[in-house]
Parts: sequence; C-alpha cells; structure tokens
Amino acid sequence: MYRYKLIVEYDGTPFCGWQRQDGVLTVQRCLEEAVQPLTKDLVVVNGSGRTDTGVHALGQVSHFDTEKELDAFRIQECMNAHLVDYPISVLSAEQVDENFHSRFSAVERFYLYKIINRRSKLALDINRAWRILRPIDAKRMNNIAQILVGKHDFSAFRATGCQSNSPVKTLNSISVERFGDQVLIKLSAKSFLYHQVRNIVGSLIKVGTGEWTEGKFQEVFESKDRTQAAVTAPACGLYFWKVRY
Amino acid sequence: MYRYKLIVEYDGTPFCGWQRQDGVLTVQRCLEEAVQPLTKDLVVVNGSGRTDTGVHALGQVSHFDTEKELDAFRIQECMNAHLVDYPISVLSAEQVDENFHSRFSAVERFYLYKIINRRSKLALDINRAWRILRPIDAKRMNNIAQILVGKHDFSAFRATGCQSNSPVKTLNSISVERFGDQVLIKLSAKSFLYHQVRNIVGSLIKVGTGEWTEGKFQEVFESKDRTQAAVTAPACGLYFWKVRY
Repeated sequence: MYRYKLIVEYDGTPFCGWQRQDGVLTVQRCLEEAVQPLTKDLVVVNGSGRTDTGVHALGQVSHFDTEKELDAFRIQECMNAHLVDYPISVLSAEQVDENFHSRFSAVERFYLYKIINRRSKLALDINRAWRILRPIDAKRMNNIAQILVGKHDFSAFRATGCQSNSPVKTLNSISVERFGDQVLIKLSAKSFLYHQVRNIVGSLIKVGTGEWTEGKFQEVFESKDRTQAAVTAPACGLYFWKVRY
Repeated sequence: MYRYKLIVEYDGTPFCGWQRQDGVLTVQRCLEEAVQPLTKDLVVVNGSGRTDTGVHALGQVSHFDTEKELDAFRIQECMNAHLVDYPISVLSAEQVDENFHSRFSAVERFYLYKIINRRSKLALDINRAWRILRPIDAKRMNNIAQILVGKHDFSAFRATGCQSNSPVKTLNSISVERFGDQVLIKLSAKSFLYHQVRNIVGSLIKVGTGEWTEGKFQEVFESKDRTQAAVTAPACGLYFWKVRY
C-alpha cells in the first residue's frame, strides 16, 4: 500500500463544501474522480478539514492510499488535467509513509478570513471576501481578540451540529490587520469547533464597528452561550490556509 | 451643465473591453445604462483609459456630464444598484468642475501586472493573473526593466493598430517584485502606447526565465522593431490601477 499527500487550492464558490455527498458537487468527489484514472481503483481522498459550502482553500491537505506505486509529479499533473473544468488545483503531491494522516497528524491548522471594508459592492472580490459597509477599527478588534488565545471553553462560538466531544479548544494565535480597505484575520489552532472561526469573526466585527464594547465581547465569550454571540460570518470570506504537521 | 467624476473597479473577464460597441457587453455601456435612470438623458461616460477585453480595473476614472444637478452619494448608490448583475463597482462619485477631464487631465496612470509563478493551474486566480510555469527571477527582471525608465521610442513594444501619433513615451517607473509565488509588475507613465504594458511584460518574462540575456532585452528594445520582441502577455493579468490628476 502506498500513501500520497496532496496540497490543494480551491475556490469554494461552486462546491457544496469538501465532503462527498450523493448528487451534489463537492471538492472531495472531484478529487476522487481525478485520481481514479491513475489508481484504477476507487480511492477515498481524506482531507485535513471539512470545509463548508463556499469556503475556499489555499492549502488544504489531503491523502489517499493505493495499491499501485505512482510517480508523485505524475499524480499532480494528471489530477490537474482531470480537474480542468473545476476551480481546484493540486499544488503538490508527494509519497508519505503510512503513519502520516492528513487529519490526525495535523499539529496546527491556519485559517484566514478576508474582509473588504467599504461602501460599494465588490467587483473583483465577489464571493472571495465579506464586505462590511460600516467602518471597522481593526486595532480594536485585534486587541480584544487576544483574550481568546489559549485553552478555553469556546461554547459561545460553537455551532449547533458540532461533532466535537468538548467545547474546549486551544487557540494558538489570532491577529486582525488592516491593509487599505482590506482587513485580514488570521487564526491558528490544532483544531477548531464547527463554525468557530466564522462565529469569532462575526462577534469581533461588532467590536470593530463600535456596536459592542470590549467588555461586551468578553462577557459574550465568558457566557459560553451561543445565543449571546453575533451571527456567523459568511462562508465566502473564509480560507483554509495551511496545515503544519 | 454638471460634471461628475467616478472611480470604478471591474473584473474585465466578461466584457469586450471598456469601449461601447454595438451588440456586445462593454464596461462603458454598462456604466451608461446605470447612469441613465438618474440623468434621464442618455449620457456618455468617458474613461481615462480604454481597457481591452479581459483587462481589469482597480481604479479606472471616468466622468459624465448632465443638465441635472445630482447628489454624488446618490449617484454611487444608484449606479451600484443598477450594476448588480455585473462585476463593476462605482467606488466613488464626486462633482468636479468643467475643466476636469478623466482622459485629458490625467497626469500619471498606474498599471499593475499580476503573475503567478507555479506549475499547477490556477484555482483562485483564474482569469486574474498570468500563470508562468518556468521559474522566473524577479530581481533580474527588475534590474533590466530600469533601462525603460525615461523618455524613449517604445516602437518595440507598440502594437499594430496603435493610434498614438508618436512611439515616444516617458515611462516614470517600473518595478518587479516577488511575494511567494506571486510576481507583481508595477508601471507608471502619463500615457502608454497600445499594448505597451503587456508587450513589456512579455519580453521581461524572457529575461526572467533566462531565455534572454539582459543584453538581448536591451537589443530588442533598441531595435524599435516589434517583431524582435516577445509575444504580448495575456490580458487577464493586467489591472488598470489608478490615475493621478
């Protein structure tokens, strides 16, 4: 048995998320269909994280097993040729040992959330960023965001339907930075709860616009009550950035 | 008579360029149709530069005249509402005096050319950048590009069909910078010849990949012969960035 690791970029817009489901277009299904001409067998392509509908990836990591030994460069080339009609690109392919698992071996996952802070609609960044009309203070967001760093109960930012055993997660880092009318939020953790990033972003924006004080944000976080927090930020601004092993 | 200046962003992909032409979708036509509900009259929206099919704009500047005095903020809001189906956004609108002309008052125009230098196909930057498969040396490109700065005969980089009276233009600045697998080329001049930016980029790439020496690039430039230069870089990587007045 041979195991291959893939790093994958995709525009999440046309996909019903990562995970294979009957009758709908998903990233996993496209990758599995693109690898089949090489392996001849139907293989499962496992992902490091299951992105939702509309969420993008700059460096999603996945792996698959096959009985056939394949040339890694040929995997990359052939898969990209088969993916010609889809906004998915295999950035790299390499053979790894059987102990490697794209999901379970991950040490740190990095997400990026992109905001365009302006009045007028998006032409070039449509479906690639969340447009916030009201001016937001990125420094204020960055300051209060630091209370999230470390091991905490993130129930306030956990979606219903989350399959994690515990609401306790360790956030390694979070930063909010402005570049012109673009505001980038970067987060890293070993793993995240369902919708955790988008729920954190939704509530941070309330501080950025001044609707919430920093005290209110802290109160919401400490309430461990999802109903206290703001709405989930839209999927289109979220990018699964990279994974450290 | 009242004159209004607009700053406009667009994704050039679905448009047959800027200029109004019968029976095809152009940026100018969309803007003129979006302003008509406000002015009631059919007005001409003049642009600072006529971008080609597939060329994008981050800050194209245009203006139009009308007999009706309008609120600038309302122009922006109404035009964007009418442009809902098109990847065009009016970033700002303001009343200007009659001496202002988006094309003739321009003092300096800025273009950006975006390259993604990697083997695998583009997922997120499809139609937004030129993918160059072979490794390119951005520093080498930047160094040789400096010979273009100043007043020169740019015949080697002038397309047939160029309507300029003279092939002599003054390039104010050019820079080539790498950020990861992204290579950005920035240029500024009062005005450019037809396809001048894309032709310069096409030949600079030859130096970047090592196919041409710096001496060869200089020879081609000094030959003033378009047939000596490399092919025109694709439209999708080009962004009309901004205009200084």
